[in-house]
Amino acid sequence: MASSNKIETLAWQQETDGFLRLIDQTLLPNQLLEIDCRTVEQVWTAIKRLSVRGAPAIGIAAAYGVCVGAGQAREQPLQQARQSAHQAADYLATSRPTAVNLFWALDRMRSVIDRDDYQQTADLTQAVLAEARAIHQQDRATCHAIGRHGAPLIGSARNVLTHCNAGGLATAEYGTALAVIFTAHDSGQALHVYADETRPLLQGARLTAWELQQHGVPVTVICDSMAAWVMQAGQVDAVIVGADRIAANGDAANKIGTYGLSVLAKHHNIPFYVAAPCSTFDLTLASGKSIPIEERAAAEIAEPFGQRTVPVDVAVFNPAFDVAPAELITAIITDRGVIDPVDEANVRRVVCDD
Amino acid sequence: MASSNKIETLAWQQETDGFLRLIDQTLLPNQLLEIDCRTVEQVWTAIKRLSVRGAPAIGIAAAYGVCVGAGQAREQPLQQARQSAHQAADYLATSRPTAVNLFWALDRMRSVIDRDDYQQTADLTQAVLAEARAIHQQDRATCHAIGRHGAPLIGSARNVLTHCNAGGLATAEYGTALAVIFTAHDSGQALHVYADETRPLLQGARLTAWELQQHGVPVTVICDSMAAWVMQAGQVDAVIVGADRIAANGDAANKIGTYGLSVLAKHHNIPFYVAAPCSTFDLTLASGKSIPIEERAAAEIAEPFGQRTVPVDVAVFNPAFDVAPAELITAIITDRGVIDPVDEANVRRVVCDD
Repeated sequence: MASSNKIETLAWQQETDGFLRLIDQTLLPNQLLEIDCRTVEQVWTAIKRLSVRGAPAIGIAAAYGVCVGAGQAREQPLQQARQSAHQAADYLATSRPTAVNLFWALDRMRSVIDRDDYQQTADLTQAVLAEARAIHQQDRATCHAIGRHGAPLIGSARNVLTHCNAGGLATAEYGTALAVIFTAHDSGQALHVYADETRPLLQGARLTAWELQQHGVPVTVICDSMAAWVMQAGQVDAVIVGADRIAANGDAANKIGTYGLSVLAKHHNIPFYVAAPCSTFDLTLASGKSIPIEERAAAEIAEPFGQRTVPVDVAVFNPAFDVAPAELITAIITDRGVIDPVDEANVRRVVCDD
Repeated sequence: MASSNKIETLAWQQETDGFLRLIDQTLLPNQLLEIDCRTVEQVWTAIKRLSVRGAPAIGIAAAYGVCVGAGQAREQPLQQARQSAHQAADYLATSRPTAVNLFWALDRMRSVIDRDDYQQTADLTQAVLAEARAIHQQDRATCHAIGRHGAPLIGSARNVLTHCNAGGLATAEYGTALAVIFTAHDSGQALHVYADETRPLLQGARLTAWELQQHGVPVTVICDSMAAWVMQAGQVDAVIVGADRIAANGDAANKIGTYGLSVLAKHHNIPFYVAAPCSTFDLTLASGKSIPIEERAAAEIAEPFGQRTVPVDVAVFNPAFDVAPAELITAIITDRGVIDPVDEANVRRVVCDD
């Protein structure tokens, strides 16, 4: 969230065996409560039920989840601790299918688990914790870099539209899409944001509006179906969203509704930006057609707040993500620079620039 | 609703002084309850709070509301009954600003109120009731005519997408957009419908899904933001929606989200149809730019089911309607025939064909 907040999206607590503490984002904005995850199952559940969500934050949570798994075997021989950590990584990989940062973080953790220079279990548990902390710390720096690279692109904008939540709650802090907005705002630019409420789980209304309010950025919440009308009225100078996985050609999976916004932005000649760290790219996928799209429970749509709105026995379709095609994305803003125009050569040039 | 239902969307009850009974649509699909409106204020409130909604149904309810107003003066001299009926008409005109059928129906009632051939109050009250019944009965015939004219346009469609509720609950019975679907279905065509849930008030999830289910038409509810993705997947062969007011050039105001759908349909080369009776046309308006757009309370978005989702003190924008421009409408289906292509000459040719 905005760096002015005291409470962190998620943080490792080093009391006794160590555990992961995170904000239960399902309760915001009405309650700011934290959950302590002391087992791998608790971390898995926190990811699955969206207590923690947003591609970068999911990656960080999973990395700490591996630390929980290793810690559960801290009294065991090294080989068993290694096994426990691997089991944690394999299990956490099943929590959600679309955000590639989850798999990217788990792969980093697996490399550390497999290092052959440990003498004893404590060496392993310390090493995995150091790696998780590094992933966490790097995400902080990454978000601020995205903000710096992106702010000039919206330098003349008065009104920006965003979808879902790509803010501090989706990352270590500061966000991806919202980092660009925060950076522009912090530099003195007068910026107003339209936040799509983002059905079914209302992350835009609940989380993005809350973060922007905390940060002092003027925000107006609209229903997702109103975005086109606001664009038509000349009230949107740029659209900026996050991403959960980006293919080698620049096709970007993000919260359901993003694809439609990319089409609507094109129709209205409004620039459409995607902001994401390089860890969100999956260069093994040629295009967005190969990105797995999570389908979630019908009840998310049919029973908002436990109140039935769809008649019993009526079918519901609930894809959690869709894919904005590269040709409708004006530029992708990463921590390593801006990809513009969006094509495979430019993606590889920026993302592979180690 | 589907003609197989026993309960009517709204109906005049001729006990004692007579009153208007209507389904409280805000409670569907969980409760099927009726409200008895025995005062003009009760009719006004039923329209305002959307217990009865949908342009044609609002017109019919308002017509009966004038009968309630006239009836309240049935013991008074003719001149006072006339005045009471006029006051009812003027008051009911303030309930909602966008649906032109409201004003069309009230103008018809005013002409009857002003007739100079009444001998006594009973002549007036009988005449206004006869006119309201005529408006009601004509709407039944109108809906079936729309169904007949429109069904051939979707004759090869397997999947149709609709938005909000343009069904029997929005009319005397059978609907406008849904009349086309019901007619195709009743003729044996295998048709599946995607119903946008239609935030903020979920008329698609609550009402359209319920009507289609009652009628035996397969339906899948999606969030509004999913329509583009379903189109992209090749799952939509036609879009068909109702209208609340149509300008002389064919620009059509309808539930918020309709404009975006018209843009998305164009992008995906999907035909976009508007279905409405001729009473929905307002030929005094050159284009949709002149159509007044009702803005409704922020709480409809910010507090669904009384549960706060938008942080306190965050702004909300809640336009109830938007306007699909004529150039994005493939055809307008009326009770007098199909307007295709949609331009002022064709609008006048079909609508003014008395």
